[in-house]
Amino acid sequence: MAIHYPNGKMYTPKKETANVKKKDYSFSNRGKTLEDELNDANEYYLAHDIAVIYKKPIPIQVVKVDYPSRSSAVIKEAYYRTPSTTDFNGVFEGKYIDFEAKETENRTAFPLKNVHLHQVEHMSKVVKQHGISFLLVRFSAVDRYFYLPFEQLKLFWDRMQTGGRKSIALSEFEEHAIEITPKYAPRIDYLKVVNDLNV
Amino acid sequence: MAIHYPNGKMYTPKKETANVKKKDYSFSNRGKTLEDELNDANEYYLAHDIAVIYKKPIPIQVVKVDYPSRSSAVIKEAYYRTPSTTDFNGVFEGKYIDFEAKETENRTAFPLKNVHLHQVEHMSKVVKQHGISFLLVRFSAVDRYFYLPFEQLKLFWDRMQTGGRKSIALSEFEEHAIEITPKYAPRIDYLKVVNDLNV
Repeated sequence: MAIHYPNGKMYTPKKETANVKKKDYSFSNRGKTLEDELNDANEYYLAHDIAVIYKKPIPIQVVKVDYPSRSSAVIKEAYYRTPSTTDFNGVFEGKYIDFEAKETENRTAFPLKNVHLHQVEHMSKVVKQHGISFLLVRFSAVDRYFYLPFEQLKLFWDRMQTGGRKSIALSEFEEHAIEITPKYAPRIDYLKVVNDLNV
Repeated sequence: MAIHYPNGKMYTPKKETANVKKKDYSFSNRGKTLEDELNDANEYYLAHDIAVIYKKPIPIQVVKVDYPSRSSAVIKEAYYRTPSTTDFNGVFEGKYIDFEAKETENRTAFPLKNVHLHQVEHMSKVVKQHGISFLLVRFSAVDRYFYLPFEQLKLFWDRMQTGGRKSIALSEFEEHAIEITPKYAPRIDYLKVVNDLNV
């Protein structure tokens, strides 16, 4: 379910989520994006008082706004900005949670070009503040999900920075990440991993 | 200083912050908005490894996008949405911080219509998850700043819901909130209050 903002404005669903509005806690991801799946999980956590975690809005630079009437504003020119932080953050049992989610069609490795330097720097600062930070990766072609703690991501990132390979092999995920097996509800229960790792 | 997103796109400063780009840690707020002042404080905290706290982007519903070239996207129609959460969140020494910032020109009271029901609900959930949530209010006409813990805000909110007054008197802030006296750097050191209250 999408979050509906009670803004009294016209509501136009985003194209990519228009047909996944209804709750779907089944095993199949039914063509959902990883972002949709994580929004579902976060909605589940919120409804069950487990955690308060949201995807941050995409930063947009507004250049021109029209006011056809006193109470409405229509943005007529704007540009996407690259986010300087990660996709998701929030709180789980007092712990600060901050993570990035990425999916790849690649069957054997996750290309590190999907992660930006400023995101790695941000995650590093979060961990320094004793927050919990990680990368959630879906290998879409094989429908496998991995939770890679930031500390591990950093090792692979540094390997690339020092001339090593520019990706993380699936076999390296199998060894250094925690695999998340889809279950009933929520389908992608990533907070179980947080819980197991931080008791 | 504004955060610059390295997006390779045209950079157009927002009108309201265009002339406050340079660092200004002086006592005077020099016509800055409360949001600018808090961004300054957060930038100071980040630079000094004190905390990682950001203002969330304003949620915008994009309806129409043009692609004048393969690598650029121009948003041609979009609408502001009402945020469902608060303005700022992040982590401070492992603690989850989540707050809303509001300024009023009113000299004697803060009208509660400046806070939305869904924000109060969100803050309530954050506190249930042992996060730290509060309202930061600037009485701009008298240049006074108050940190109102969520638990106090909730009492005033409930008073309104049960037919009581629809605002919080300045004198009530003096009694139930913590006043923040502007200092050198950062000017609005709200994390000092968090620290004092949560040792």
